[in-house]
Parts: sequence; C-alpha cells; structure tokens
Amino acid sequence: MSAVDLPADTAYGLDHLPFGVFSTEDEAPRVGVRVGDHVLDLAPVAAADGIDSAPVFAEPTLNPFLGLGRAHWEALRAWLVDLLTQEANAELVGQHLHPLAEVRLHLPIEVADYVDFYASEHHATNVGRIFRPDGAALTPNWKHLPIGYHGRAGTVVVSGTDVVRPQGQRKAPDDAAPTFGPSVRLDIEAEVGFVVAGATRLGEQVGVDSFADHVFGVVLLNDWSARDVQAWEYVPLGPFLGKSFATSVSAWVTPLQALRAARVPLPEQDPTPLPYLLGDDLPGYDLAIEVELNGTVVSRPPFASMYWSPAQMLAHLTVNGASLRTGDLFASGTVSGPERDQTGSLLERTWNGTEPVTVGDQERGFLQDGDTVVLRATATGTGGGRIALGEVTGTIRPATT
Amino acid sequence: MSAVDLPADTAYGLDHLPFGVFSTEDEAPRVGVRVGDHVLDLAPVAAADGIDSAPVFAEPTLNPFLGLGRAHWEALRAWLVDLLTQEANAELVGQHLHPLAEVRLHLPIEVADYVDFYASEHHATNVGRIFRPDGAALTPNWKHLPIGYHGRAGTVVVSGTDVVRPQGQRKAPDDAAPTFGPSVRLDIEAEVGFVVAGATRLGEQVGVDSFADHVFGVVLLNDWSARDVQAWEYVPLGPFLGKSFATSVSAWVTPLQALRAARVPLPEQDPTPLPYLLGDDLPGYDLAIEVELNGTVVSRPPFASMYWSPAQMLAHLTVNGASLRTGDLFASGTVSGPERDQTGSLLERTWNGTEPVTVGDQERGFLQDGDTVVLRATATGTGGGRIALGEVTGTIRPATT
Repeated sequence: MSAVDLPADTAYGLDHLPFGVFSTEDEAPRVGVRVGDHVLDLAPVAAADGIDSAPVFAEPTLNPFLGLGRAHWEALRAWLVDLLTQEANAELVGQHLHPLAEVRLHLPIEVADYVDFYASEHHATNVGRIFRPDGAALTPNWKHLPIGYHGRAGTVVVSGTDVVRPQGQRKAPDDAAPTFGPSVRLDIEAEVGFVVAGATRLGEQVGVDSFADHVFGVVLLNDWSARDVQAWEYVPLGPFLGKSFATSVSAWVTPLQALRAARVPLPEQDPTPLPYLLGDDLPGYDLAIEVELNGTVVSRPPFASMYWSPAQMLAHLTVNGASLRTGDLFASGTVSGPERDQTGSLLERTWNGTEPVTVGDQERGFLQDGDTVVLRATATGTGGGRIALGEVTGTIRPATT
Repeated sequence: MSAVDLPADTAYGLDHLPFGVFSTEDEAPRVGVRVGDHVLDLAPVAAADGIDSAPVFAEPTLNPFLGLGRAHWEALRAWLVDLLTQEANAELVGQHLHPLAEVRLHLPIEVADYVDFYASEHHATNVGRIFRPDGAALTPNWKHLPIGYHGRAGTVVVSGTDVVRPQGQRKAPDDAAPTFGPSVRLDIEAEVGFVVAGATRLGEQVGVDSFADHVFGVVLLNDWSARDVQAWEYVPLGPFLGKSFATSVSAWVTPLQALRAARVPLPEQDPTPLPYLLGDDLPGYDLAIEVELNGTVVSRPPFASMYWSPAQMLAHLTVNGASLRTGDLFASGTVSGPERDQTGSLLERTWNGTEPVTVGDQERGFLQDGDTVVLRATATGTGGGRIALGEVTGTIRPATT
C-alpha cells in the first residue's frame, strides 16, 4: 500500500473503507471514506480522477450515492482500493485527507423508513420471561417469522448525540393508576442496522437471494428504550414512546463487501421456515459486539448467535408487497447470546434491575443521568485482520421538565 | 363572490379551499387549490399578485409551503379568499383554473413519519372482543393514553391507487402450522389523518394547546389491513405486514381553519387523563364519514364519537421528546360509532366475516379482487353549508404470485 501510510493493525485499512458524512470548519457536510484515522474527502478526489459520479459525494447524505445501485458501489470500491494502493496517488490523496480529530461526523443517511426486528432467540426469550412471566417465553409465531415493527425514522441520530431522558406514563402492576414523569428504567439495546438502497415498486418482493442488491452496508445501532414506558404502553399495538425518543447509529457505514470473511452459518432453524424464507445464501455475520458503560465493558453480545439472517428479515419485510426506498434502515433487534454477560440490554444484563452490574465503583440497574454508553464491534476483514464497525456513543442528559 | 362561478351548494367553496398537488398533460406536479370542480394553479396566480412565497407552489409536494408555518398558512388563506372574491380578478383566476377532469392528482405531501392511533372506544372494544375473546375488550392502558404505533411512511399512496392484495403468513388457532398465500381477510379502516408541519427539536414537547401551530389540515385515510396476517404476527410488537402494504389518503388536504364550525366537545373522559393530556381546547370534530363498497354505502362512521382529541394524540406523541418534521402524518385509527352500521372496518361491520353485508346482489365478509372502496366525509363549513373532505378510493387487484 502506498498512497497512504497505515499502521499494520488498523481496523480501517483497505479491506474496510466505511462511508460516512463529515464536515470541516470551512466546508459543509459531504461524503467521506474512513482510512485509518483520517477521512478522505471523496468528491474532489473522484473528480480529479475523472469519476463520472463524483458530484454525488458532495451531497450531505449517502443517499444519492446509494441510489446508484450495487454495480456502482462495487465499481467505486474497486476504484478506491486501486487509488489508495498506488504510490503515484500519494499527493492527490494526501491533499484530501482530514484527521478524524478535525472533522465533525453527521448522520450518514437520510432515513426513509426504519424497521426494528427481534431476531435474537436469547433476547426474545429473556424479555418474554421478564415482561410476561406467566406465559410462554417465546410467542407462538416467533420461530415462523422474523417479528418486526416500524420505529420513528425522524429520531434516528448519529453517534455522539446526547440523549435526553424521556418522560412518559408508567404503571407498575400493583399501582392503582399510571403516573407521569422521567423514565426510571432507561435502557439500551445493542443492535446491528442494515442500510437499504435501491427503490422497489409497490407489490414487488425482494427475495432472500436479492439481499446484497438492496443492502449497501451495516451500522452499529443503539435502540434506547424506556422500559417503564414501554411496559405500560405496548399492549396491544407494540412499542411507541418507549422507543421513539432516540435511536443512535454509528457515523460509519461498513459496506457489506467488507464483511465477506465474517459470514457464518445461521444456528439451526427448527421448524423449517416457509419457502419464502429459505435460500442458498442465508448467512449470519460473526460480529463481536462490546457494550461499555462509563468505561467498563459490561457485556459482549455475539451477533453470530442471531436466529434469523438479515436476508430473511428483508424478504419478510417485503413479502406483502411493501416497497423499499433508498435510505430505509432495518435493525436486527437486541443482540443477546446465551450467557448473561452476552446480553445486549441492561433489562437482561441486570434482570430488570434486580441484579445490578458493577461499573467502576458504582452499581447500575438502569441508566443514570450523565452515564455514557459506547457500543463497539469487530469482525474478521477480508485481509485476515480485524475490522471495527463505527462505534456508537451516547450520554444521558436529564429530562427537560 | 365574483372571480369564479360556483354553484350555491358546492362542497368546495370559499369556506373550504383544500390544498393538493396536480399535474396537467404539459406541466409537472405542482400545488393547487380546489375551487368547485376546478383546480387553481397557485404558483402563477400568486406570482402575478406579488406574493413572495409563490415559488413554493411550483414544488411537487405541499411540504415547502407547510414548512413556512401557521402565520403564513393563515395569511395565504386570507389572500386567497380575497383574490377569489373580487370580480376584478376573474380574468387572472380564469386563466389558471383547470377542470378536475383534466388533471391528475398526486400524493399531496412527502410523508416523513406516519403514526396510527387507536382512538375510537367503540372500535377498540369491538377489535378486543373479536381478537381476544377470552380477555377484557379494552386493555388496561386504553383510557389513560391514546395508544398509537408507527406505520410505513413509504407506502402511503394517493386516492385512486390500486391496492395489490398482499401475501403473507397466517395461522388459524386450530391450524398446526402457519401457511403462506394471498390474504383471505382483506379489510379497510376508515380514518382521519392529520398533516403535521413545523419541525421541533429532539427533547421538545408539543402541548395540547399548540395543536393548531403544528397541524395544517386533515385528510381522509384508508388503512388497508390484512386481518389474517395481522392476527398471526401482531403479538408482541404490534401490526407490521398486515398494514404496511398500502395506506391510501385523499388527494386534498382540508385546512384546519375550514373545520372551525365542525368542532364539537369530546365524549366524557373517565378516568380523567394525566395533566399533559388536559387543556382548555380539546375539540373533537363532527365529520360524517361514509364507507361505500362497490357502489353501496355499508357504513356511516361518526368522527364525533372518537374518545381522544387529535390534540391529545399529538401531545402524547411528543411528550417523550420525539421531534416532529414537516410532512409527519398521524391518523386517528378506525372510526367506529356505537352501532354496527357505524363501524369503520369490515372486521367489525361483518363481525369477522360471520355476518356478511349485502352489496348490490352479492354478499361480502371481506374484500374480493376487483372490489372498489370509496370513503367520503362531510362537515359543516364556516359558511353554514356542507364541505366535503377529498374522497379516498381504491380498487383491489389480485396478488402477484
């Protein structure tokens, strides 16, 4: 490699090349690619190298680029690797590299529709046990279809955005009536999000085998959750205000192409799903997630343990003819492994607050004002080393009353 | 009135003036106002009359106009009434009036987030009895908060768009396993939608008294529903594919200002809701809805019977700090009155298909391919006559297999 100097063990080398949107003091938000600890300003480099689509990189979201389609994403990636590999480009590239510390990162996509799935068997089982102790842990439909629901697209925010503690109604089973106030059971959900590109028409279905034609890449995602609000409101139409106040995503979108070496077989699916959920290529992804609370790693959820493949999620989402738009985002649902210290929410990690975790010299059941949560994830890159998804951070601010 | 000739009994007179988006053979979609059976092309008329904001009316959605805010909507309406009242403007106006029969109508807004409420006590009670016969009809939270959930914004379509019968999984309680195929219980939901304008920041709340600052107007809305898909999928996270295939809205947005004379007190709310849902101005609206199936009126849902005020819905939606965007749309949920022939869905009207309705020389439990549904609604206008919301029509096309 010669157009840029990179440490041998970087998680952002030429086998990664995640896309984002950044701004500098003197220039508005535009598309960049992360290379080591720098951001490459794509529009001027692409223009200088005669790339026709260069103007899409001057836009303030990835959507125009994503809308060009899979063949274009792949060609652009090949061009980029070639560009960064040749020593002759060192001067051109160097002129347009900005140190990460000197840029501001923005929400990388304009989110069209946001759908959240519920695809971890361990998570769904834990939640069922906690929220519905008298019934079966998994609902009867759970192993037949990837359960999902729509969330609020307008409150998806970029990593680093503070989260204001939401207010709302909550009622414990023994309370006579609901009360109102700031959530007292504020939680996280560690998830992986999938960025959709390529619009479809109403009535069209995207089969499991077309996943890579319609998913550009992945983000890490924190689906902040007010458990007290959620528990009171969610019957019968599902979560609403308990989730809609904020959903944080990483500033970097890792292309699906960079995760080829991270593909793993799914856990066995029994019973066999209906035919529209079956295919020759239904990978899971071996992403090692880390949940850090105020500097202490409290959990390590393994994405490889998810029951449903993201390809099955997308096929299910569209099987009724629902159309897609570039910028749609769907998330996996909380990632939880079989062990307590592999769970992706504090609800599970502390068993609804009854078994607090130790964080430094304190204990936590749920989040307190001032707490900072960081989600990280790594995977094996195509070069054999580790690549790291963009991290997702957020700090809790007091409720505005 | 002098700049236009209108029949005395028109439902689209100067006390109504709904906004929409239309195109003609030789010109792309732009904003128009319905006047009688004509559409007034706003951009050139506003420009000729020296209105600063004239360019927003050349846009293909109402969003730029809505984004200007309430004071501007009201000033524009006053200008419009004045313009259309003065005989001296007859030539200018006449040059820009297009007969409805010669234009194509488009989706009037670019929908940001779509939320559907569940605000009719009669509807929620009926659905509870049908879907959960062994439990209480109303869930314990129902009278404490207006229950809502997010729907799919990308599949909101304009009146007149065909609806392809969705496919999906369904499982009757006695079936051993789910089966896949076209929905066999395809239904409608007659609702009223509210068009939001004026963005708010994350963490900000829109109180009940700020409703008119953030709602420009109303549409009629048909929330098409596949009851078999919905019944199997909706536990525990709510409706998803049973609703996401299509939601139809009227092409015309009736300004809230035109519904001043339609305001009525809400039914009594007992228990008294929490303080954030109380206010001095919590109107219901007396809209007389009509559900027509293949030419036969099968139901007349009264919107005045709704339990929750739309102002309470918006206050609830934002009480957790969720931000608003111009183009957000929220709907009332199915409008059902106390009588069987006042219900807004076939699920209720035919009691889950067990008591079919007569439509011409046929019977219907749920919708068959080729069926056409038309929703209409009228209200008392500020001039004392009746105004009519834009109708919502849709015809069922066979599933694509």
